[in-house]
Amino acid sequence: MSGHATNLRLKLPAICFLLQLFTIILFAVFVRYDQETSARLWHEELSHHNKSNRDNDFYFRYPSFQDVHTMIFIGFGFLMTFLKRYGFGSVAFNFLIAAFAIQWSTLIQGFFHSFHDGKIHIGIESMINADFCSGAVLISFGAVLGKTSPIQLLLMALFEVTLFGINEYVLLSVVGAKDAGGSMTIHTFGAYFGLMVSRVLYRPQLDKSRQREGSVYHSDLFAMIGTIYLWLFWPSFNSAITAHGDDQQRTVMNTYFSLAASTLATFATSALVNGEGKLDMVHIQNAALAGGVVVGTSGEMMLTPFGAMIAGFLAGLISTLGFKFLTPSLDSRLKIQDTCGVHNLHGMPGVLGALLGALVAALATQDVYGDGMADVFPLIADGSRTATYQGICQLFALLITLGFAVVGGSLVGAALKIRSLGSPPDTQCFEDQIYWEVPEDHQDGYMTAVNSEDPERSASV
Amino acid sequence: MSGHATNLRLKLPAICFLLQLFTIILFAVFVRYDQETSARLWHEELSHHNKSNRDNDFYFRYPSFQDVHTMIFIGFGFLMTFLKRYGFGSVAFNFLIAAFAIQWSTLIQGFFHSFHDGKIHIGIESMINADFCSGAVLISFGAVLGKTSPIQLLLMALFEVTLFGINEYVLLSVVGAKDAGGSMTIHTFGAYFGLMVSRVLYRPQLDKSRQREGSVYHSDLFAMIGTIYLWLFWPSFNSAITAHGDDQQRTVMNTYFSLAASTLATFATSALVNGEGKLDMVHIQNAALAGGVVVGTSGEMMLTPFGAMIAGFLAGLISTLGFKFLTPSLDSRLKIQDTCGVHNLHGMPGVLGALLGALVAALATQDVYGDGMADVFPLIADGSRTATYQGICQLFALLITLGFAVVGGSLVGAALKIRSLGSPPDTQCFEDQIYWEVPEDHQDGYMTAVNSEDPERSASV
Amino acid sequence: MSGHATNLRLKLPAICFLLQLFTIILFAVFVRYDQETSARLWHEELSHHNKSNRDNDFYFRYPSFQDVHTMIFIGFGFLMTFLKRYGFGSVAFNFLIAAFAIQWSTLIQGFFHSFHDGKIHIGIESMINADFCSGAVLISFGAVLGKTSPIQLLLMALFEVTLFGINEYVLLSVVGAKDAGGSMTIHTFGAYFGLMVSRVLYRPQLDKSRQREGSVYHSDLFAMIGTIYLWLFWPSFNSAITAHGDDQQRTVMNTYFSLAASTLATFATSALVNGEGKLDMVHIQNAALAGGVVVGTSGEMMLTPFGAMIAGFLAGLISTLGFKFLTPSLDSRLKIQDTCGVHNLHGMPGVLGALLGALVAALATQDVYGDGMADVFPLIADGSRTATYQGICQLFALLITLGFAVVGGSLVGAALKIRSLGSPPDTQCFEDQIYWEVPEDHQDGYMTAVNSEDPERSASV
Repeated sequence: MSGHATNLRLKLPAICFLLQLFTIILFAVFVRYDQETSARLWHEELSHHNKSNRDNDFYFRYPSFQDVHTMIFIGFGFLMTFLKRYGFGSVAFNFLIAAFAIQWSTLIQGFFHSFHDGKIHIGIESMINADFCSGAVLISFGAVLGKTSPIQLLLMALFEVTLFGINEYVLLSVVGAKDAGGSMTIHTFGAYFGLMVSRVLYRPQLDKSRQREGSVYHSDLFAMIGTIYLWLFWPSFNSAITAHGDDQQRTVMNTYFSLAASTLATFATSALVNGEGKLDMVHIQNAALAGGVVVGTSGEMMLTPFGAMIAGFLAGLISTLGFKFLTPSLDSRLKIQDTCGVHNLHGMPGVLGALLGALVAALATQDVYGDGMADVFPLIADGSRTATYQGICQLFALLITLGFAVVGGSLVGAALKIRSLGSPPDTQCFEDQIYWEVPEDHQDGYMTAVNSEDPERSASV
Repeated sequence: MSGHATNLRLKLPAICFLLQLFTIILFAVFVRYDQETSARLWHEELSHHNKSNRDNDFYFRYPSFQDVHTMIFIGFGFLMTFLKRYGFGSVAFNFLIAAFAIQWSTLIQGFFHSFHDGKIHIGIESMINADFCSGAVLISFGAVLGKTSPIQLLLMALFEVTLFGINEYVLLSVVGAKDAGGSMTIHTFGAYFGLMVSRVLYRPQLDKSRQREGSVYHSDLFAMIGTIYLWLFWPSFNSAITAHGDDQQRTVMNTYFSLAASTLATFATSALVNGEGKLDMVHIQNAALAGGVVVGTSGEMMLTPFGAMIAGFLAGLISTLGFKFLTPSLDSRLKIQDTCGVHNLHGMPGVLGALLGALVAALATQDVYGDGMADVFPLIADGSRTATYQGICQLFALLITLGFAVVGGSLVGAALKIRSLGSPPDTQCFEDQIYWEVPEDHQDGYMTAVNSEDPERSASV
Repeated sequence: MSGHATNLRLKLPAICFLLQLFTIILFAVFVRYDQETSARLWHEELSHHNKSNRDNDFYFRYPSFQDVHTMIFIGFGFLMTFLKRYGFGSVAFNFLIAAFAIQWSTLIQGFFHSFHDGKIHIGIESMINADFCSGAVLISFGAVLGKTSPIQLLLMALFEVTLFGINEYVLLSVVGAKDAGGSMTIHTFGAYFGLMVSRVLYRPQLDKSRQREGSVYHSDLFAMIGTIYLWLFWPSFNSAITAHGDDQQRTVMNTYFSLAASTLATFATSALVNGEGKLDMVHIQNAALAGGVVVGTSGEMMLTPFGAMIAGFLAGLISTLGFKFLTPSLDSRLKIQDTCGVHNLHGMPGVLGALLGALVAALATQDVYGDGMADVFPLIADGSRTATYQGICQLFALLITLGFAVVGGSLVGAALKIRSLGSPPDTQCFEDQIYWEVPEDHQDGYMTAVNSEDPERSASV
């Protein structure tokens, strides 16, 4: 019986309560308001440095933060509602694991980046970084969507956030790579981590649930809410933690043009690869966003607007081709079942973005950057490395990220194979009804599906 | 015949035109641009105080305002679209009454807070406060959703906004309580006001419309748009009118963590209280938001991040328990029919938030707040009251709010019982078709519902 | 066979690739980062003028930009999803043509407004203006929605953006008119341009597709997402490029109150003109927004809050009346088929807004504006024209705009009649299935529609 394996009545409360309790205790011990958030410290700052309340970094980061926040919870959440019978799970498990991941990553990233005097000091930047990290987890979620229980997802988040923090620390603080929009730390890492988890959790019998893997007309429209919000706010995402001033404005503009170009490339390629010249909603929903991923590293650099367009155009092109030609063979040949096609939206464009970042970094000159060099490439500006060497470091960062993602994803996937984690049976993937009280109109469809198309119904996991 | 009682052809235009005309006249007589909005006054300010255009408070309040604005019209509006046959009424009556309430509350709040030289002076802060006030009306709307005509709703808004203004004035200006995010003024007031209106309008025969009180699959997804936007922007809501600087950043951060914790508590509790361990969309849509309500008073204080998490966790817990155990008995024992469960989302968490605010205020010390004390607790900072006394005032403010809400809601409910206000018959609650031209696909469902499930169809109101 | 005429397998990729390639080349030759976006130039500015990174205009324009961006892609996109079988086309063709238009208008507007030393210099303001221009194209799209192929739409965008740029240049730089929120440049121009295109493309046999021209219950809810976002962010739209300080705050406030009043007028009028007193979603979705259009010109002026309310009230009133009485006769008498009723939402309110702008400009006095005159009416402030003359110039600007729109729309409409552009046959208008791979649930409906309601099916274009 599937009923008993997927009944989460005690397990889900237990893990939620435990994780939340554990997090609260760690916060109580380690986490404190930073200088801009604490009443006493900020007012000391005000009086010592002749500042005004309006110099608080809140006013220069919070609008960006809210855009990123919207991408994480509306963007990713609704993007995944395209499945006809997994809308609740898509938007709500997205909600659950992101709500946990932002707390946990505040701790993990805090230990690596803002730990001093035995305490983690947090403020608006740590909130942006926590949302970024949860973005990586949600990308991985896209690969395993519909095939995992919320318990597995929470555990995946627990481990992935931790590994994300380590990888990010190595890249930014050890290697000295630049990656403000996370082509490597977020997209490449999240995609290949998730793909490895999916590989380890491979289901040879997934065909038993294929009738539920598609969309219905209105579920595709719900998904477009996610797509458009991700597209709109990607400029904020890539610029949210760059240096203030020209850097933020330039990153926004590069991302804006890259996305516009990837949109045209996606429509063009979608019609081209379809036998009848018809457009495919899956491509529009996903590949049009590849332009945001591909300038995640280079967006803050002097990429030039037309450079951003070329990058976005290529990203939209390869992403659409990936959906058409690569995803089927990933499944059949490499045994990687990638529900949302994260390899096409985040994997390949992420790697391309890392390579582009290395190239643009290697081409940096004092003439082009002027005194702005110190904001974009501080190690070049202070003479401790050349532009070429910075480019090499960027390449090295990509390799490290791929290593962490592949090894980490494999290990975590193995851990998630544990029998009692409530994974759905092969016959009940992409189906809300196993984890949710659903309205009558949904139950009917389910009964039909179960009774007519899949009569045995004996589950096995 | 129900047709004639609910036909609004003359009544609705009459009340809309009258209210709008009356408002325009009052605006013409009383309302003027404030110093930051008037071309002449602002430029005098610029030249007299050596300011720059970029010092205009617009840049430090408007992003918060737009988040609040989104919560009011998208958040509340879509949250209530969960009903299978009341989506039009939910989002559009929300739109109508909020559009009126923001105008009317600009007048009412203006008389209390920015009336000098015989004029009300308005700017960005008055817009935020007007949206806040309309939030309280929309909470009350949630309690009576599907059981009231738009005329009743407009009248409710007219009276409730007025009472809101009085209560808020008493709390903030007479008692000297702090309540930046409105745990008391908005949530507690709006919830108990609405519950009393619903009590007075009790329908013993509401079972005749129960078949329409649930959701369908996609209406639950529409509702999640409202939920997620409320969740995302609650940090902006609670911080929108706090003092600039550390106060806004701290409030945002406290709310962010409180909401994250309430989300985990909600998922945990939802699975726990369900016989089969299944999650319930009603809980996720509502209780996950209780973390925002519960720090409405204390969010600007030095609550600490882990304190915020504990508060949010408890709020999510009691809110979910409320949906499961309290709402049914409110209906059966206290004759309070609470369509959206506002008692669980706004009522109990609002009271809890008021108590928490009193506690955190009573614990305030100079050591923790430093010179920031003046922003959070000006009356403690200037020596006119102790922290303990501030805490007592906060408690007193809660009692006053409950008093205003209960008495006001009862009186307004009685006024709304007037026969000719177009209230739907018991057989036609939660049904768009009585007030709306609806598409064919909806009519069919209605005919089925009317003909097969409810054959008498003789209306009585 | 309709199949061959509407098969876009080669044509759509060809035009997308060509337009994108051409745009990239022009960007490479002409477009450069402006002083605030370039690393070198901004840091020179910093050191020469003792500025801080936080003085970058990014922080004072970007939140407004993102609101406008949301209006263009979510607002317009979802507003048009009201059609029961054209949701994909509505939101996705909106996406495609806006993604192209923002690139192309960056070039066109750049040549007119920021071309020096042989280069176009772009930054956050050019992004806002590009989004504005794409807004005009999307308004025209509303007039021809469901009756044009994506190829026709891209060509329309190409020509319309170009004409928009010329008209805008004449109005703002030659005539010296003020039109910050685009009552003339965006709404009047976009509406009458689109109406003329629709006139030239008149389909006498459109009745063959009338059964698809309506909505279903949930498509009306999707459309409300668009409506509410447009409504919420219209204050940002009208204020996005006004002068900083009081101007932005005043424009926001005027638009806020105008929209609120138009909402009440719309509900009132909608119930009044319906035989049974029922409200019509089409009115709510559209006419409630007329309050934003009507203060597009005068919003930045000292309109006064009650003046804004009167304007919004009238706009909501005439817009609703237009939907009821004018749209049918536009079709039957003037042979203008206006799918979304852009004449009611953008056309008439745009003209009214232009007239209002002329009136308010003519009434400007030094006493009211003080030193703020220079920001709102620089030519009055520097003595080169009187207020009356400014008012006359505003009227003249309206006439020029109408001329450009009518002549331009006619010519472009004629160009779009070319046979091979993939226009849908009369029997297949308002139908996603000709351009899209659609899910099974949608195909069924289509088969029903084609087989039972429209048996001949022989296409003619």
